[in-house]
Amino acid sequence: MAKYSDELDTVFIALADPTRRSIIRLLSAGPAPVGTLAEPFDITLPSFMKHIRSLERAGIIHTWKAGRVRTCELDRTRLSLVDDWLADERARWNARTDRLEQLVTSPEESS
Amino acid sequence: MAKYSDELDTVFIALADPTRRSIIRLLSAGPAPVGTLAEPFDITLPSFMKHIRSLERAGIIHTWKAGRVRTCELDRTRLSLVDDWLADERARWNARTDRLEQLVTSPEESS
Repeated sequence: MAKYSDELDTVFIALADPTRRSIIRLLSAGPAPVGTLAEPFDITLPSFMKHIRSLERAGIIHTWKAGRVRTCELDRTRLSLVDDWLADERARWNARTDRLEQLVTSPEESS
Repeated sequence: MAKYSDELDTVFIALADPTRRSIIRLLSAGPAPVGTLAEPFDITLPSFMKHIRSLERAGIIHTWKAGRVRTCELDRTRLSLVDDWLADERARWNARTDRLEQLVTSPEESS
């Protein structure tokens, strides 16, 4: 449970940045080399690499090096952590809404 | 678009902490006073209030004061920002998977 919570922290931190979300979007088209990914962004390569490492630490992307080229690939399973967390919260919220609706509709039904 | 991106940043930052996620869970049962919400946590009230403010800044909760009691309430619409972002990424990912499947299955079909 603590591990799951730490993982969620890292994933949410990785997602809390527009450059990193753009990298995720670019990688949804398929694996790509760091150089190509960095092109649309007006930042230095070291700054860009920090974003790559944040995504890698969160497990959202995997990277590997062949010669001088580092390639990045999206790992969708990690984003499903966020999906699961949201689904869980939604279920709790809906359960409460259902209870409230019952409270509101029951008196009308018995009148 | 920039505003949407800033809002996503704030929401993801707010979600990147176990105490704040626990507060969201507690509030899914309905509005509650800060004092009651703080009880399960082994932190000082000023530290707890920082978490409340982070959630409030992100628009995930609303708070109001009546006398000496500040009450918090969850605003689910804000979490749907995350839902929408995930759905969008999932759609892009699935479109790519569909294209890959077509590439793999088409030669078999024609053989």
